[in-house]
Amino acid sequence: MVMDDVTPGSVRPGGRTARVRAAVLRAAGDLLTERGFANLDLAEVATRAEVGKTTVYRRWRTPTGLIADLLVDMAEQSLPHADTGSLLGDLTANARLVAKTLSDPRQGRLFRAVIAAATCDESTAAALRRFYDVRLTEWSVCVAAAIARGEAPERTDARAVLSAVSAPLYYRLLASGDPIDDIVADRAARAAVDAVRAGTFVSAAD
Amino acid sequence: MVMDDVTPGSVRPGGRTARVRAAVLRAAGDLLTERGFANLDLAEVATRAEVGKTTVYRRWRTPTGLIADLLVDMAEQSLPHADTGSLLGDLTANARLVAKTLSDPRQGRLFRAVIAAATCDESTAAALRRFYDVRLTEWSVCVAAAIARGEAPERTDARAVLSAVSAPLYYRLLASGDPIDDIVADRAARAAVDAVRAGTFVSAAD
Repeated sequence: MVMDDVTPGSVRPGGRTARVRAAVLRAAGDLLTERGFANLDLAEVATRAEVGKTTVYRRWRTPTGLIADLLVDMAEQSLPHADTGSLLGDLTANARLVAKTLSDPRQGRLFRAVIAAATCDESTAAALRRFYDVRLTEWSVCVAAAIARGEAPERTDARAVLSAVSAPLYYRLLASGDPIDDIVADRAARAAVDAVRAGTFVSAAD
Repeated sequence: MVMDDVTPGSVRPGGRTARVRAAVLRAAGDLLTERGFANLDLAEVATRAEVGKTTVYRRWRTPTGLIADLLVDMAEQSLPHADTGSLLGDLTANARLVAKTLSDPRQGRLFRAVIAAATCDESTAAALRRFYDVRLTEWSVCVAAAIARGEAPERTDARAVLSAVSAPLYYRLLASGDPIDDIVADRAARAAVDAVRAGTFVSAAD
């Protein structure tokens, strides 16, 4: 990284390489949002990002390579877990964050586009799984804290609990088309806590 | 429908029109499963189905028109709701049916393909929403029966309960990539029942 290239006041710190990546990923996200993944074209991404085509082809090679890097960036940008002091508070914060993202017009379309892209390409599917793995692992800390506080039974499966919170929101985005709002988010969090308390997410003993 | 065209012993009853439709939808499903939706070609569907191209173009017009009709057929073929006598039994039957479908290699790929297609085309998205509407309405009867039996509180939102049962399975198929099996299905049903009993799915009074 060319560190002497950093200028004071730049929105995103880093050298030229980091700035090029930010511009290219922003342009890729915009094009995915506008037209879906099937028409993502590297030359058009380069033009939109005001970056040389050769740079884009050399670094990302294919549309799927670009989507995979976008997912890495989305994982890096994703917010740290909440720490409200209660499991319901933490899971509600998680559900509201997911609901806000998926109901945002740009972000909702972007998630639909990358999920659709993953159905057509195995490397994109692997990148998508890594994105959700980062998110689920980051927020699993909330369930570990709840176990430590005595709010959740020992051996509660944190990943399953976090999946249960997000799942109804994704089901609306991708399947039923039912609206996504804070009422639905809060209910998803409460339902997960009900099931945690009932011991339904306790894993079988080894 | 040309009823005199029915031959004894045919697998699917109906006239020539119905048989053509069955062959075309089967070929469309096979091609979607093999290659995803982005490469669905009506001429290739016609060849695979051993049906005239003109017939296919005249009746379905576009790949998205064909996918929409496939979703109508999938809704028509979908199984009636269970009636086991308990909410947990009915929701477990629903979850296992969804898990069996989504974990089946052909069916899982078909669902991923039509969901991906829906992200790129509004008429396909509308057809997908109608498919889930048929499914959710059919199985909502189980929640109404549970309310009548006193197993679920009055004003429990049946559609939200059924969505909660399916959602963790779709989240695995489309997002996290975590495996889908009967253990996960049974847990999704149990978690929904825990939340129903806690009153979390009760709708606000009008």
